[in-house]
Amino acid sequence: MASTTELWEELTTHVHGLVQLGGLQGLAAWDQQVYMPPESGEARGEQLAFLSGLEHERACAPAYVECLASLRERTSELTADQARGVETLSRLQGRLLGVPRELVERLARLSAKGFGAWAEAREAGDFGVLEPVLTEIVAAVRERAACFAEGGDLYGALVEVYDPGVTPAWLTATFERLRSELRPLLEGIREAAPLPALDGFSIEPQLGLAREVAGALGYDLGRGRIDVAEHPFTVVVAGADVRITVHPAEDLMDMLGGVIHETGHALYEQGIPRGLPGVSFAASTGLHESQSRFWENVIGRSRPFLSWLRGPLARAYGQAPPLEALVAAANRVEPGFIRVAADEVTYNLHVGLRFDLERQLFAASPLAVADLPEAWNAAMARDLGLEVTDPVKGVLQDVHWATGAFGYFPSYTLGNLYAASLSKALEQALPEMWEQIGRGEFGPVLAWLRENVHGHGARKESPDLVDEVTGGRDQVADLIDHLWARHGALYNL
Amino acid sequence: MASTTELWEELTTHVHGLVQLGGLQGLAAWDQQVYMPPESGEARGEQLAFLSGLEHERACAPAYVECLASLRERTSELTADQARGVETLSRLQGRLLGVPRELVERLARLSAKGFGAWAEAREAGDFGVLEPVLTEIVAAVRERAACFAEGGDLYGALVEVYDPGVTPAWLTATFERLRSELRPLLEGIREAAPLPALDGFSIEPQLGLAREVAGALGYDLGRGRIDVAEHPFTVVVAGADVRITVHPAEDLMDMLGGVIHETGHALYEQGIPRGLPGVSFAASTGLHESQSRFWENVIGRSRPFLSWLRGPLARAYGQAPPLEALVAAANRVEPGFIRVAADEVTYNLHVGLRFDLERQLFAASPLAVADLPEAWNAAMARDLGLEVTDPVKGVLQDVHWATGAFGYFPSYTLGNLYAASLSKALEQALPEMWEQIGRGEFGPVLAWLRENVHGHGARKESPDLVDEVTGGRDQVADLIDHLWARHGALYNL
Repeated sequence: MASTTELWEELTTHVHGLVQLGGLQGLAAWDQQVYMPPESGEARGEQLAFLSGLEHERACAPAYVECLASLRERTSELTADQARGVETLSRLQGRLLGVPRELVERLARLSAKGFGAWAEAREAGDFGVLEPVLTEIVAAVRERAACFAEGGDLYGALVEVYDPGVTPAWLTATFERLRSELRPLLEGIREAAPLPALDGFSIEPQLGLAREVAGALGYDLGRGRIDVAEHPFTVVVAGADVRITVHPAEDLMDMLGGVIHETGHALYEQGIPRGLPGVSFAASTGLHESQSRFWENVIGRSRPFLSWLRGPLARAYGQAPPLEALVAAANRVEPGFIRVAADEVTYNLHVGLRFDLERQLFAASPLAVADLPEAWNAAMARDLGLEVTDPVKGVLQDVHWATGAFGYFPSYTLGNLYAASLSKALEQALPEMWEQIGRGEFGPVLAWLRENVHGHGARKESPDLVDEVTGGRDQVADLIDHLWARHGALYNL
Repeated sequence: MASTTELWEELTTHVHGLVQLGGLQGLAAWDQQVYMPPESGEARGEQLAFLSGLEHERACAPAYVECLASLRERTSELTADQARGVETLSRLQGRLLGVPRELVERLARLSAKGFGAWAEAREAGDFGVLEPVLTEIVAAVRERAACFAEGGDLYGALVEVYDPGVTPAWLTATFERLRSELRPLLEGIREAAPLPALDGFSIEPQLGLAREVAGALGYDLGRGRIDVAEHPFTVVVAGADVRITVHPAEDLMDMLGGVIHETGHALYEQGIPRGLPGVSFAASTGLHESQSRFWENVIGRSRPFLSWLRGPLARAYGQAPPLEALVAAANRVEPGFIRVAADEVTYNLHVGLRFDLERQLFAASPLAVADLPEAWNAAMARDLGLEVTDPVKGVLQDVHWATGAFGYFPSYTLGNLYAASLSKALEQALPEMWEQIGRGEFGPVLAWLRENVHGHGARKESPDLVDEVTGGRDQVADLIDHLWARHGALYNL
């Protein structure tokens, strides 16, 4: 009979392999969106399907199942990190054991096919181009969720994949509260004079500017890189080799928002401790988004940060806009069609809309994919007062659903909520942080996040971690407070 | 008991997985040399070691061993392609079965480490920096070769990996004959007036020029791409997604020679039929090099090609050098230190030197790695009349040994020999080929190669394939004849 030490070594080997396969998927996905030749999509889809199937096979290998089961019986002999690792790995494995490998590979192929159909549908401005494959995708995702959903709650099972410990019921109540508490602020802003935008910035210096800003925030470019892609994203390629992309745009604040957002993701990944099975990964996508949204919004749209930013802007463009113009442009609130371009105030309304539709798509009597555009447009009119005429600015705007990622969207709002309370805790811990940020000293903030968030990896459930770090603050209240504090003055409310 | 059809389907699945793993190794290797962040080398080395180990595990999986064994017993029920596939796959597997996975992974790690040490040694101009890891690498490669060498012939076993059907004894005799038959031509050239070089070309337009030239030759850039790297190479990433790299240089003929060489490799890979287990890959590295060297030398240094090239050069640089200057620069013969920059006449002397040293490193009483620089320098004095003072221009110039690739070098000369006879056969089959090339019509030549070489995949051993296509021509005589025909006129011999 194997000793606990031997079992742990065996576990380490199993997990090492899974981590390597994850990195290879990251590399293939990165290449797909950054450098892959245009006609290699099908071959890459095959490669990704193979990797998914292989990962599934190894995650469900009888030897690994047995190894985890034996370790679960010896929790008392394990360190706290080891015991937690066994717990998270067992949960991950439990979700996979009932899913046939054929379905896993089919979903990977559908995801690559959906990505292509989504791009074509956008090109054609026609949801009908995506509809058939999206219908297949929803059916396959339902099939997968049914393999591990408890009590038949398909959507709850999908949310749990991304955000353990978070339920659709809690999300429903939270989005309701957000909608109602955001209303007075949004109405006040609608009646006030609009803030001016800033655009017309040339594309050429933006990649260099992105590197300077990301590097200043602490992104390790010795183990990362920034490339141009159609959509900004972050990917783990191998170990701490974490890469981000930027989408240059005439609207400079939009481009920079994307860069700072992805930098936040990358800082988290680069700060997770290595080599601890079941602990060395992100706790949840909600916590991930808290890091990206924290840097993008709490820091990136703040007056001290924008004051510092004038230096890099002057180096990139010869001169920087006046501080007041930057602050106004970074904090303009205006209901718009596009989530990724949305201001901090309306952003969560976009997410709530998607949450509602996802819940309906995975309900017992589901919304049909064919009816999605109409449902989308009705929700936009209700939640943001906008009439959608172009599906590219409506139901076709996000890639998530076309690649099978249902249950992810709530993570963005979770991220905003976590970030709001984490930033209050940060302000208490570092009373001089805003002065430091004004001087471009981002190190203390990053160090605090490394110690209190990144360095924990998956040691704790995210809701618990945030409660512990912040002392159980009311996250919705913190977010609303932050939004009033920032926009009240700018809009004279 | 499984039917033959079921067994074949099972085989197809096994091979599909191995092909996917090969593509992923290609992607990771490509990224390593083109876009990987500088400090991610160790993580990438881990990833590549994992892939090597996994590939080995799957190539030796009992189910796959059994599947191949069953199919070997049913050869009579198979098509010719299937039977050949079973034969090549069984040979590949046979070479792996005796090699422990631990050794495979160790070699992959040593290869990544060797690559790094090689770069450092070049930086420092000091072989001593590479020596310890190269010593480990040679020992590990000996260990691996011993696992499958017949009759203890380690070096023969290594050559057989790259070029089935080729033996060290045959190579020894061939290099002897080449040395002796090249001597009169080289002596004549040494006494003649030297031809002028062409350099001082700016770097900036070279990537675009490379794309135009490679595309004109038939390289499918919809399934390929050209990036800048320190060293030119070709890699299969997924299916027909075959990528090449270029190293811009002030010596434009050097840069272009590299591009056309890699294009030749890529044309071969893109022309291999897909989906035939055991047949859908290159027959040998010698045949691979015949395709790269054919395009680089037979075509790329010819007067008609250079005449056509003046068009792209004029588009890239505003004006093109006179044709005579291009022809002279592309065909200058001068003994030099660097193999990849060597002219067609001295090139095989560089290869012969490496072949001699490799044989000694893997002999029963081997040359010690510590004695390699001295042996190298002595051979350079003997074969090329040059005194090496800088190891960067000597034993440190090639990456092959530092990554464990021993037995590969002879493939370059095999390639030159195959290319010489293939081009004679081509001239007979396409009497108008040189006129067509002068007009930039490369399609007929490529079509002939696709039909007679690429399209066969690994259906035949390369020496047999070349003999069949050329009618058993004397390859050494063809090569010497080609070199005299081309250089005799230019040097007034």
